[in-house]
Amino acid sequence: MEKNSDFILDIKELPNRNAEYLETLFALGNGKFGVRAGNPLKVNQQYPGNPGLFVNGFFESEEIQYGEWAYGYAKQHQTICKLPNLRGVTLRIGSEDSAKEEWQIKLTHAQLDMKQGVLFERYAVKTPAGKSFDLKMTSFASLARSELFVCKYEISKHNFEEPVHFTQSLFQEREAINENDDPRVVSKEQDLGIEQNQDIYQFTTKNSQKKLAIKWIKNDDSFEGKKDQFVSIFQISSIMDATDESAPSFSCELAEFDTLLKEQRQMYHNFWSVSDIRIKGNDTLQKGIRFNLFHLNQGAGRDGQTNFAAKGLTGEGYEGHYFWDTELYILPFFIYTQPKTAKALLSYRWTILEQAKARAKELNQSGALFAWRTIDGQETSAYYPAGTAQVHINADIVYGFQLYERVTGDHQFIEEKGREVVFETAKFWVDFGDFINKEGQLAFCINGVTGPDEYSALVNNNYYTNKMAQNNLRYAVELANRYQLFENEREKWQKAADLMYFGYNQEMGLTKQDDGFLDQALWDFEKTPKDHYPLLLNYHPMIIYKYQVCKQADTVLAEMLFTDDFSKEQLLRDYAYYEKVTTHDSSLSRSIFSIMASRTGQVKKAYNYFMDTALMDVTDLQGNVEDGIHAANMGGSWLSLMYGFAGLRYDQGLKLTNYLPKEIEELRFQLMFKGERIEVILTQQKIDCVLIPNSKHTLTISGKEVLIN
Amino acid sequence: MEKNSDFILDIKELPNRNAEYLETLFALGNGKFGVRAGNPLKVNQQYPGNPGLFVNGFFESEEIQYGEWAYGYAKQHQTICKLPNLRGVTLRIGSEDSAKEEWQIKLTHAQLDMKQGVLFERYAVKTPAGKSFDLKMTSFASLARSELFVCKYEISKHNFEEPVHFTQSLFQEREAINENDDPRVVSKEQDLGIEQNQDIYQFTTKNSQKKLAIKWIKNDDSFEGKKDQFVSIFQISSIMDATDESAPSFSCELAEFDTLLKEQRQMYHNFWSVSDIRIKGNDTLQKGIRFNLFHLNQGAGRDGQTNFAAKGLTGEGYEGHYFWDTELYILPFFIYTQPKTAKALLSYRWTILEQAKARAKELNQSGALFAWRTIDGQETSAYYPAGTAQVHINADIVYGFQLYERVTGDHQFIEEKGREVVFETAKFWVDFGDFINKEGQLAFCINGVTGPDEYSALVNNNYYTNKMAQNNLRYAVELANRYQLFENEREKWQKAADLMYFGYNQEMGLTKQDDGFLDQALWDFEKTPKDHYPLLLNYHPMIIYKYQVCKQADTVLAEMLFTDDFSKEQLLRDYAYYEKVTTHDSSLSRSIFSIMASRTGQVKKAYNYFMDTALMDVTDLQGNVEDGIHAANMGGSWLSLMYGFAGLRYDQGLKLTNYLPKEIEELRFQLMFKGERIEVILTQQKIDCVLIPNSKHTLTISGKEVLIN
Repeated sequence: MEKNSDFILDIKELPNRNAEYLETLFALGNGKFGVRAGNPLKVNQQYPGNPGLFVNGFFESEEIQYGEWAYGYAKQHQTICKLPNLRGVTLRIGSEDSAKEEWQIKLTHAQLDMKQGVLFERYAVKTPAGKSFDLKMTSFASLARSELFVCKYEISKHNFEEPVHFTQSLFQEREAINENDDPRVVSKEQDLGIEQNQDIYQFTTKNSQKKLAIKWIKNDDSFEGKKDQFVSIFQISSIMDATDESAPSFSCELAEFDTLLKEQRQMYHNFWSVSDIRIKGNDTLQKGIRFNLFHLNQGAGRDGQTNFAAKGLTGEGYEGHYFWDTELYILPFFIYTQPKTAKALLSYRWTILEQAKARAKELNQSGALFAWRTIDGQETSAYYPAGTAQVHINADIVYGFQLYERVTGDHQFIEEKGREVVFETAKFWVDFGDFINKEGQLAFCINGVTGPDEYSALVNNNYYTNKMAQNNLRYAVELANRYQLFENEREKWQKAADLMYFGYNQEMGLTKQDDGFLDQALWDFEKTPKDHYPLLLNYHPMIIYKYQVCKQADTVLAEMLFTDDFSKEQLLRDYAYYEKVTTHDSSLSRSIFSIMASRTGQVKKAYNYFMDTALMDVTDLQGNVEDGIHAANMGGSWLSLMYGFAGLRYDQGLKLTNYLPKEIEELRFQLMFKGERIEVILTQQKIDCVLIPNSKHTLTISGKEVLIN
Repeated sequence: MEKNSDFILDIKELPNRNAEYLETLFALGNGKFGVRAGNPLKVNQQYPGNPGLFVNGFFESEEIQYGEWAYGYAKQHQTICKLPNLRGVTLRIGSEDSAKEEWQIKLTHAQLDMKQGVLFERYAVKTPAGKSFDLKMTSFASLARSELFVCKYEISKHNFEEPVHFTQSLFQEREAINENDDPRVVSKEQDLGIEQNQDIYQFTTKNSQKKLAIKWIKNDDSFEGKKDQFVSIFQISSIMDATDESAPSFSCELAEFDTLLKEQRQMYHNFWSVSDIRIKGNDTLQKGIRFNLFHLNQGAGRDGQTNFAAKGLTGEGYEGHYFWDTELYILPFFIYTQPKTAKALLSYRWTILEQAKARAKELNQSGALFAWRTIDGQETSAYYPAGTAQVHINADIVYGFQLYERVTGDHQFIEEKGREVVFETAKFWVDFGDFINKEGQLAFCINGVTGPDEYSALVNNNYYTNKMAQNNLRYAVELANRYQLFENEREKWQKAADLMYFGYNQEMGLTKQDDGFLDQALWDFEKTPKDHYPLLLNYHPMIIYKYQVCKQADTVLAEMLFTDDFSKEQLLRDYAYYEKVTTHDSSLSRSIFSIMASRTGQVKKAYNYFMDTALMDVTDLQGNVEDGIHAANMGGSWLSLMYGFAGLRYDQGLKLTNYLPKEIEELRFQLMFKGERIEVILTQQKIDCVLIPNSKHTLTISGKEVLIN
């Protein structure tokens, strides 16, 4: 029997008390918005921390300044707005005011109850005049009513009896996160107009002209009551996009706290009943995995207009942008557990197809090129060699649609929204790539691109990119055949896919990451001081690029996605070689190395890499949790378990292979496949699969392998 | 006999009357400063044009804003200051004031007398009240006294007799040149403090904290005199760097106009007597060449602290930066005709060696890496793939020192200043490059660089770069042996030079521009509309980089510098191939193609390319003369004549080969070789060389070849 405590992240278990780190870990969200767990009394600079509200897709834009401009550069920065902390209150006792002087406030207790989706906190507070009281908070971001943030405040006075007056504060501090950090982390001051209208505040961004309205409802204005008795005030914040509204109409009125809480519990019950992964043998790991799944659930936009930001809705890192992280690292979890959310995330890509077409045109190319990083679909990468040049984003998105269709069997969605994306990206590939006489025969080459490994840039024939583009083209041919479309184009797509160039070094027996990679010198790791990682913060890009050194899995990632195309010997050789030159400076790396270690029988490595990914944010492995969670890595830890230990992949049906490391006694989870739920139990001895009664699927078990189709 | 008119550039001969174009062509300078030939009455925006004073090395700096920052990026912009027009005057007649209302002013006559170094102009002026007069100007930038700009104004009144009051105007308009133009052309507002002190103005830049003082002296305050009589005012502007001075002391007082003019004539007589090139058979060409030599003379810094900006001192283009243009395109002219100026230009590089060492260190490299573009030695390139990555600048500078030593025999300068530059750059190469097993054998590779061709970037083993680095290393070994220095390093330098990798495609019989170049698709020139050139203004760099398309001579430039290392067949094959993929979007390209056409017997091509270079600015071939002259191309036209038609090169002595095209009857010029002057006459039939009596040189003539040693 599982214990309830396995679902509770308690502050006592955490390695440090850094305010910004805790704000991220305990952040609450529901895909529409996220609230950092900041000090509830913080106004301006008085108290430590960096609290804030992030609303998915609500951003400010600003012209990008280039030292030297060139044709086709991205024009606008987009930065998710850090809005006032919804948890923030101003308390007044007599003439004392928590917003005017700094009160002593100490977090004495904090538990994130992931089973219910509720955060419980307790603070000891003391005013400058010596009045002391306990403040309890019970808060959640409603999954059932996505516009609502709910918070109950309870106060127990220790040495006074006057009422404690309560008002919501608008916190407007804009503490820029350290700009010397990771250069992809940029924080911008938002010039927000704030307009008071009774209990409604409206925020309008200056340049992007987006509008947001927030309404606060509470059941009381002051904590009356006697000493040492808890008295409560219950406050609901209701958040509404008002961009297209003249006067926002809030659908929600003050409801009973218990009703809302009950809904929340039910929603989370539903979530865990399909998404939970139960691990026997390691309690810390069990909780770490649940923490990751919990945050994945909190960050996913579900309205078809928004996506999953690299930091979810927990911080300002990466400016709130959507990357390939979604399709490659996050989407599989949703496809296999909550296909509706997966569909919503993919629908977003369809909504930005027009921007992708315009971008391709701007670059004198046919079809569509999706933005490397964006909120509204416009390209916002200000450094194209590690931005626009990562054209693999096109094929990554298509891979997401393809996997969704295979696993859900939802052909209608592909007909309605997917196929257009697949066709337009196929048009791009055949225009962008070239048929070239290469090594004595005609080959389709994709030159001048950057692959996933951002420590190599503007290379010819990046293996991953070519492999993914080939898959994109083949899927386009499949859909064109199915729907009898693009008769004239189909042949060229097929030809480009068939003649796709893949570099191989015969002498070394290695798959080439790109045409020149293996011809470069090896990075001198011995001469590299430990404090010089990540390399990108300590070496000029042109120095990094000229060596064999990888920021993250690249060829190995391609081999993870298409494992069955390679012999085990090849996989082992490539793994050994690329592992030696990979720094894992990106949080997207270790999970992939874990999976491929599993699949090639390197059990120890598989477990070690997995443990780094599984607990990355709780242990603050990368040292920058304060800027937000590493969402892709959280998805990656799910991948390590499913694609790695359980060997999950699609090949004429779902295939599972038992690669469970000895440190894990038992792994238990559910998968959705074509509308039906399958329960899987892996132990050291075997795989058990349970289909629902009358399932349309069949199950073939042979040794450690299972095929479901 | 030559005609005086061959030295006069008359406005009547010019193709248009565009104010900015004329300001550039008629600009006057002396290496210390340059004055654009702007409308003398222009104040602020009232009159057309973009006049200004540029003082060599006087710049403002500003932090570079990056959309996305990375380690090791250049920190500061540097922009030469556009200072008030020294020619500008404010005229007042009664209550009429040329600075307050716009007077009619029409240039009726303009002649640049290159033989004397003097500009003659005549304007017809009419006030709003109808008073009309003629204004004559005679102006020059003194070569003898480099701080002086001299201008005589003469007025002849037509229909009034009141005095015309005369004051110097400070023009502070800052018309930014069109930012949609070439992205390397950047103009910045300068925030200059201006402080009046009698007739002295001092300019202080806000960020770079540089100071400049200008003193004006004139012999009268108003034009008195009767109608239809010319009355003159004579004004001297004296320019002084005041950065290190508390109170600038001007050495110069008002001298007689005729004395200064006489000095100027004498200086120019000296200049032409060694530098002139006489061409029989085409008067336009004769004048065009002289115009180029004249501007080369006007732009070269001679104080050892400054260099030759890409636009000379005639405009704001390229921000007044010094590039490799100096050593590769401009320096040879000075080495062969005015070695003292060549020495001063090279001395500048020695003065910025410390900055180059610091830059190498910042990039975690040994030795020194010179800035790709700079004024004070700091790297200011804000786009490193076409900036810092052009590390060939190191070898280009060393090539300049080497050529200087070979031609002048001035070993002392090399001992004092040259050798340290050669050693430090050699240290850089062996650290930056790598010994790599390449095509089955150990080779020294230089990866991740950009060569001269800016339509390819961050490539491995750029042929030009490797060839030049090899030369740099060999020269370092030679000097280390000569001076018995760097005993421990010598061997590695020698090994790197000996094992330097040079790519060759056996099948095509072609020298490879870089490892991947010939593997890329050919640019589709047929599909490229004519108005899409230059490509860099119409295509994203990542699109351009992935094709076989060159902005300028790259491999062909290497073959020009080391012609004797190649068979004629190889040169012809490479020429034919690279010519087809070269757009000549850079003004540094055609002169090199002309030379190599000469040397490979493609006479017609040699002449056509030469004609484009020789008259590039007079005819405004590139369409942007308004931003300043194309100094490197002017040097390039000298190279086309000397290295091309006369086959000049150094190989165990000076070698000349007669490649005169049939369009030129006779080519006559002088060369300085190891302190002695040699007169050369090329005709269709032969080469005549005349050594001074008692010359230490010997002359060997065989057929169309001459060897002087």
